[in-house]
Order: sequence, then structure tokens, then C-alpha cells
Amino acid sequence: MASSQPFQHIGIVGAGNMGTMMSFGLSELGINISLWDAKSSNVDEAMSMSKDEKSLKGKITGFHDVHEFANSVKGATVSGKQRRVFLFSITHGNPADSVLGMMKDDLQNGDIILDGGNEHYRNTERRQRELESKGVSWVGMGVSGGYQSARHGPSLSAGGDPEAINVVLPLLQVFSAKDARTGEPCVTNIGPRGAGHYVKTVHNGIENGMLSTVCEAWEILHSGLGLPYDQIGKIFEKWNEKGELRNTYLVQIGSEICQRKKTPEGDKHGEAASKTGGYVLDDVLDKVVQDDDSTEGTLYWTVMEAANRHVSAPTIATGHFLRVASGNRRQRLLVADKLKMPPPKKMEAAKDADAFIETLRKAVYSSFLCSFCQGLELIARASRDEKWDVNLGDCLKIWRAGCIIQEEYISDLLMPAATSGAGIMNIKLIDEVSAALTEHYNSLKLVVLTAVEADCHVPSLSASLEYLKYEGSRILPTQFMEAELDFFGAHNYDRSGVVGEDPGKVAKGAHHYEWRPA
Amino acid sequence: MASSQPFQHIGIVGAGNMGTMMSFGLSELGINISLWDAKSSNVDEAMSMSKDEKSLKGKITGFHDVHEFANSVKGATVSGKQRRVFLFSITHGNPADSVLGMMKDDLQNGDIILDGGNEHYRNTERRQRELESKGVSWVGMGVSGGYQSARHGPSLSAGGDPEAINVVLPLLQVFSAKDARTGEPCVTNIGPRGAGHYVKTVHNGIENGMLSTVCEAWEILHSGLGLPYDQIGKIFEKWNEKGELRNTYLVQIGSEICQRKKTPEGDKHGEAASKTGGYVLDDVLDKVVQDDDSTEGTLYWTVMEAANRHVSAPTIATGHFLRVASGNRRQRLLVADKLKMPPPKKMEAAKDADAFIETLRKAVYSSFLCSFCQGLELIARASRDEKWDVNLGDCLKIWRAGCIIQEEYISDLLMPAATSGAGIMNIKLIDEVSAALTEHYNSLKLVVLTAVEADCHVPSLSASLEYLKYEGSRILPTQFMEAELDFFGAHNYDRSGVVGEDPGKVAKGAHHYEWRPA
Repeated sequence: MASSQPFQHIGIVGAGNMGTMMSFGLSELGINISLWDAKSSNVDEAMSMSKDEKSLKGKITGFHDVHEFANSVKGATVSGKQRRVFLFSITHGNPADSVLGMMKDDLQNGDIILDGGNEHYRNTERRQRELESKGVSWVGMGVSGGYQSARHGPSLSAGGDPEAINVVLPLLQVFSAKDARTGEPCVTNIGPRGAGHYVKTVHNGIENGMLSTVCEAWEILHSGLGLPYDQIGKIFEKWNEKGELRNTYLVQIGSEICQRKKTPEGDKHGEAASKTGGYVLDDVLDKVVQDDDSTEGTLYWTVMEAANRHVSAPTIATGHFLRVASGNRRQRLLVADKLKMPPPKKMEAAKDADAFIETLRKAVYSSFLCSFCQGLELIARASRDEKWDVNLGDCLKIWRAGCIIQEEYISDLLMPAATSGAGIMNIKLIDEVSAALTEHYNSLKLVVLTAVEADCHVPSLSASLEYLKYEGSRILPTQFMEAELDFFGAHNYDRSGVVGEDPGKVAKGAHHYEWRPA
Repeated sequence: MASSQPFQHIGIVGAGNMGTMMSFGLSELGINISLWDAKSSNVDEAMSMSKDEKSLKGKITGFHDVHEFANSVKGATVSGKQRRVFLFSITHGNPADSVLGMMKDDLQNGDIILDGGNEHYRNTERRQRELESKGVSWVGMGVSGGYQSARHGPSLSAGGDPEAINVVLPLLQVFSAKDARTGEPCVTNIGPRGAGHYVKTVHNGIENGMLSTVCEAWEILHSGLGLPYDQIGKIFEKWNEKGELRNTYLVQIGSEICQRKKTPEGDKHGEAASKTGGYVLDDVLDKVVQDDDSTEGTLYWTVMEAANRHVSAPTIATGHFLRVASGNRRQRLLVADKLKMPPPKKMEAAKDADAFIETLRKAVYSSFLCSFCQGLELIARASRDEKWDVNLGDCLKIWRAGCIIQEEYISDLLMPAATSGAGIMNIKLIDEVSAALTEHYNSLKLVVLTAVEADCHVPSLSASLEYLKYEGSRILPTQFMEAELDFFGAHNYDRSGVVGEDPGKVAKGAHHYEWRPA
């Protein structure tokens, strides 16, 4: 397979989880790998792991010296030009700049660096500009799917210099996940400059709207309906089989998580070893820290982008706020001592659990779809603002396999309109989407009502419900807000039912009423 | 009054609504004003308005030439140094830089420029650095209260060089609003660098959480209970009289808005003139555009700051998302054609309206308090990160009068702890706050349930409800989210009930379970 593309040797910077698995995955395709990490012990660990792997076909060589590493990478001649490929897999922010500083004398005209970490797109664009004069192409490449996909085929969104991307695309096509139905590789040149990292960032935003939704559903099943973990696992399994939640990665892995029991040996590292059994999930504390400790930027960048570009994204945003509250558990327990919130209680709906579970399934789907609407609309807006010309159909195509937000039904639902070239800015204007959201509105509403009654946590589900109401409303209570703003701020208003004003422009209205002269 | 401080003449840049009213207000204190605007017609208009104002004591002189304007401003000697005061009241972003460019040869060592517009604090800090070498002090000063307060006394948060702020503080104390109870001026040196504009930005964020809440309550009363505007106005009047919503500016002006009828003459500009009567509010379209058209930055900056600094602020954020949806009315109507959301309907609660209205009052208070918690916690976090040493008690003091978020009960509730010097980072740890939020939880919950049932819009009220639940929860459904993140991302987890891990640090957990080997 590796021979169908020009690069037989690439250099990987970063021997963490993702970098190591990508080195294994690429080696399994017959590609030789040079591996370096600022932390030598990471390299040693990866090399030691590699010894047990029989499937590696290419040679993986670990380096402690960055210059030896850089010089070890063999290039290939493409269209008469010598090119080398480096793949970075390191934490966002300073680390990439620091590594670039170390490698500055080792980089050559023609080198292509694929930044496969999560990075803020403005940093990506800055590095592209800085390296351009050296003839080095910095490609911001989203890599999605977690460490399993990193080895067996991730979903890849490459953004930057189109000529450089063309050179590496055959390599990436071999490496990437493939759409099970069409066999198409889940990789594309998504657009210029920071577009690749931007699309990955928003992918993670959508992911979090979905993660919040599914964990709320899990609590409803567990605390609201009183179901044990394994039964919840079976429900998720069924959801994943057919219908609107079929082949939804986060539901599928949820079904495994709910059914995974501790064993005397535990996993291969000995984690969750127990002679008395119980579920692995019981060990896991409710503390999601990677926003709070800034190791992961993508989610809150998405919230910031949505705010800055004025795209309503409440399902996604509330996911961040929930995670933040969860992360600082010490403080939360102090607050809980004083703010005596009732814990989730058994629902009335538990009496006819089967019917309610079906309603919940539809509500989860609805909230997933809201998350996609918000994320795709944000990408569309950014693409227009930044002149990236991102094709939403391409986003959906690379999200068909390998990635965390795989959701087959939603993908099938959106794909025809998204690939039609119509340049859709508002996903809810797609007939099939609005029809689905209308159809399941009552399910979402019933779930929110039932969960709120039982004091379950439904920040994302309720945010999705409110989102649908205000996005599709002919009259909003902001009529009163607009009057208040005009009262003290002379913000002006347009008049209801007056041609040229209603709906009128998105601009300061024509009228100010002097409610209270100064 | 003007004589109790050194400046008898100041220069105002910007003859819009706010700038004009500040020029009148300062002139009424006997101060001479030089007034200039990049748009000459604004100056002419302000000068023409000033002719009808008998109350002006100082002389207002309009200028079309920026150099003549700058040189007209007479300084004062303070502590042996010649100082002149300029007050900018212009739109955020480029305009200030452009004006500074025009005035660069006119500015003198010792000049103090108060930037009274809303500005992103990083722009403020940049200008402070740029002007420092010239000996010009740029003070980022939040001005709150709308145009009425701009004339009769606004709430002012000055941030920047403390020596310069000390020089102008006597002037600002004369000009600012006064706390009705203590007579204390609502102005302070809030902190160095961008602190002044930051506090104003977050003030506007809190304002919007409150605005959303109050407009949702208005819809519940109008559509849910079927009450006519004037009756709603009387309810708001009562709410404003005593109890938890007493002297709440946004409730008070809401009561006036709901009762304001059109007249044959209309207001002084002839707006809302009608021979057949009706309410002015009926004219006002539900289109709040100033996020969408970026004329107002403060609200979405607050959302971005909350996301970036990891402070949960869902009540505030959802306000932004609602406004964004409202602003693009044309697109919303297109969506509404397809996404058939039911309009708000009459509530069951309408049968015992009085009891429900009282419940609603408590829910509104609760959501207002959530908005304050979120905003103050954001200020506390930013102040710690930026080493501003902002005193939350000072914020509350300047918000006692003149400003839009005046809420006497909440101010009284928070003040003792906020002024205690305890450096509170989490407002919900204040006994009185948690007690109030606990007490009114059921009211907030009942309102959300009733409103959701009736398809009313309650994005902020429901966001506040969920916020309280997750901020005060001992166990969150993020337990399941954390397991999912560990499954594909090897994000690691800490274990429940294990000393050193639970609650443990806000940092990557100690365990990774190999749910699915790569």
C-alpha cells in the first residue's frame, strides 16, 4: 500500500499516545518512521512498545537528538522537487513553536510539516506565514478518532498550501479511515490557511454537544429510570443498531462502557483489577478536567468562535460549562455543602419505561442533530468570513468513518443538501433536517419536562429544546428586550409589520421612542 | 460643584448619544466643554440641541477641526504638572485608533484620555502601552447607565495608570451617580491596565443575562397567562417596590414600557404618533441586532472570556445566542416556515395566576442572582489571572446607582461578603447567596416546567436552573463522559472515593483503563 504513494519514510514529532499510534499505523503500511519527542522517555516507551508489535512492517527508529532525527528523514522527489514529510503530534500552543525553534537549521526548502495536533487556527496561520519564506509548508491537519483510529485509520482534515497538500494526499488517503459504504478515504484538502484545524476544532465542539447529551441520557436511564449499567449498555447497543442513532460512535462505545466489568487481572496495565467484580464505570470520577487545565483547547475555542462570529451554539456551549463545573470537584463539593440541590430521583416515567426509553432515543437524536446544525453553521460562517470556501459536504464525508462524531443517520440526512453545492449557511433550512427536528420536538420536550421534574441534569437537552424554539420562532420575547434597549440605550427598533423594516436588515432600526428624556 | 475639582474645561470626542449627554451633564456641573466628532453633522446636531437646554452652566463649543478642538482644551496644574482631560465616547475598535492618529501631534505630556466607550480590554491595554512613552495616560473607563445616566450621573469604572486616575477622580466623583442610601459616588479606580473596561464588559454580560430573564418572564405573563401589557406593567411595578426585585432598573423601566401608550403627538420626535392609540411596545419588532452587526461587543466578549477562562456562564451565554437568533429575523422566518415550532400557548397556571406570578417573581430573582454569580466569578478569575486585584465589593458599590444592573436586594445580599476582603472566587460559597438559591430552586423549577409545557421561550431561565444543579451537585453525569473520553482519548480518570484522587486536583487523572486496545 505504501508504494502507491511517494513517501517511504516520514518523521514524527511527539511520542505521546496519538503520535505513537500514528507511528505504528503508518509503519503497518510499510512506511519507515523516525520518531522524536522533546521528552526522551516518551520515545523510549514507544520504542519498547513497538518491540511487541508483530504487525509493524516499516522500521521505527527512535531519536533523542532532534537534529539527528530531522536529518534521518528521507525525502522523495515529487514533480521534480525534493520533499520530506514530518508529522507533528504535540500539545497546542508553545510546544510547536519550541520544536520549530530547535529544528530551524534542519528544515529544508520543500519540507512539508503536517501538524496533526489540535491547534488554534490562528496559530496555524501564523506558523504558515513564518515558514513560507523558507519554502517549508505547514499544513494544519485535524486528526480525529482517538488513539485507536490514529493507528487503524483516522479522519483527517488538511488545511493550508494546496500544492503541498496535493503532494501528501496520496499518503494520507492510504492512512486514513475509509467510508465502509463507499470505500472513500476520510481525508480531504478542506481549505486554505487555518481551515483544517478549524474544522477539527468544531468537530470537537460538535463532539461535546453529543457527549453532554449522551451523558445526560445515561443519567436519566440510571438515576431516573433506575436501570443498572448493563441494561443501559444493552439499550445503547440497540440504539446503535438501527434507526436515527445507528452507527453512532459515542453510543456504541457507551454500550461497551456500561457493560465492562472489572476482572481479577484488570486490563493489560492491571487497571480495574478486582476480585469482587463490579463495573469499571464505578471507578470513574465525574471530573472532566481538560478544559480547566487547558490541555485541550478545541471545545472552548469553539464556544469562543461561536460567540465571536454570532452563531447560536447553546448545545455546544453548555457542554463546556458543564465540564468546567465537573472539573473542579473540590470546589463543587464545597458549593454542594451549601447549595442544597436535590439529587436526581426516580421518575414517574419509570412505570412505563419502554415507551419513555423510545422517547429518550428520539430526544437524544434531536439534540445530536442540533449539535451538528450549530457546528456546521459555525464552519459555514467562518468559511465565508475567512474566504476558505470549505465544502460542508466534504466535512460530512470525512466524518463518515474514523472520527468521534460518526452518526450514520445524520450523515445520510445531511449529505445530499450539503454536497449539492447550494452553499447552505443555515442547516435547518434543509427540508429533511427541519422535518426531523419538527417530528421529534415533542419527544425532546417530554424528556426535558420529565428530567427537570426528577431533578436530573439536562443542560444540553434543554439547551437544544430552547434552541429549536427560538431558531424557529416567528415572534420572540426579544420584542420586550429591544424596547428595554431602546429605553436606556437608544438602540432603535424597526416596526412590526412595516414593509422595509419587517423583516428588514440586520442593522440598527429606524426608530427611537423617547421613553424617558434625558 | 465643578470648583471642588481642578478641571474647568474638558474635551469630549464623540457627539453621539452618549457623548452629547455627557457633555450636557458635565456642562450642567459648570464645566466648559470642547466637543468634536469625526462626523461634523453629529457636532452640529449636538450644538443645536444644546441651544434649547437652559440648564447648561458651562459653555459647550463644537469643533469641526480636530486640531482646533484639541488645542482649545484648557488644562489644570495638579501636583505641579500640567494636565488636560479628554473624554472619548466612540465605538469600539478602529475609531479610537483613527482619532488618536489624527490627534498625535496635538497630545501633550500629562494629558489624560478617559475612554468612556465600550472597548475590548486588550485594545485598551495596547493603547496604554502605545501612549505611555508620550506621557499620555489612557484610562479605560466603563460608563454605564445609558444616555439618561450619562447626563444625570453614570456608574463609572476607571482602569489604568493609578496616578492619572487619582488626578481625575475628584471630577468623576462629582459627575457620577450617587448611592441613594449613602451618598457615595458610583465611581472607583477599579484596577490597573484593562480592568476598567473588563468590569464594564462583564457588567453588560450580567445585564444581558438579566435582560433575557426579564423578557422571558414578560412572555410568560403575556402569552402564558394571557395578561395585557398594562397589567404586566403593574406587576413589574409591584415587583420593583419591595422584596427580592426591589429597585431593579430593568424591572422598573419594564413597568413603564408595558404601560406606555401611543398618543396623537407621539414623543418629542413624533415617534409612536397614533390617533387610534395602542401600546408603543406593539410597534417594536423582536429584532435585537447589535451583536450581529458588531456595533456592541461587550456581550459576546463576555461569552468569549467565560469560555477562555473556564467560568461557567450559561445564563449570560444563552442571552447572546437568543439575541443572535432574534437579530436575523429574515432568516428566522425562513426557518420558521420549515421548522414548525408551536407558538407559546396559554398555561394551566393561568387559572391561579396570582400564585404563579409570585412563583415567577422568585424565579426571575433566582436567575438574576445566577447572572451575578457568573459575572462576578468571571471578574474574580480574570483579576487573579491578570493580577488586577479587583475588589468585587468595589464593583458592587459602583453598581448601586446609575447603571443598568442595579438590583438593590442582590447588592445588599452580596455586599457584606464581597467587601470583607475574603477574596471570594465562587459567589455561591457566600452563605446568603446559597441560601437564597436553595430557597428559590423550586420556584425556578416550577416556572421552567410550566413554561416548557406551554412552549414559551425560557433559554435563560432553564440555563439558570441547570446551572444551579450542576454547580451544586455531588455527582454529575460527567462520570459517563469521563469514561467515554478515556475510552477513545486515554484522557485518564481519578477514582471515586479514593483519597488523593477524590476530589483530587484539577489535572489529568491517574488511571487509564484500556477499554479497547489500539
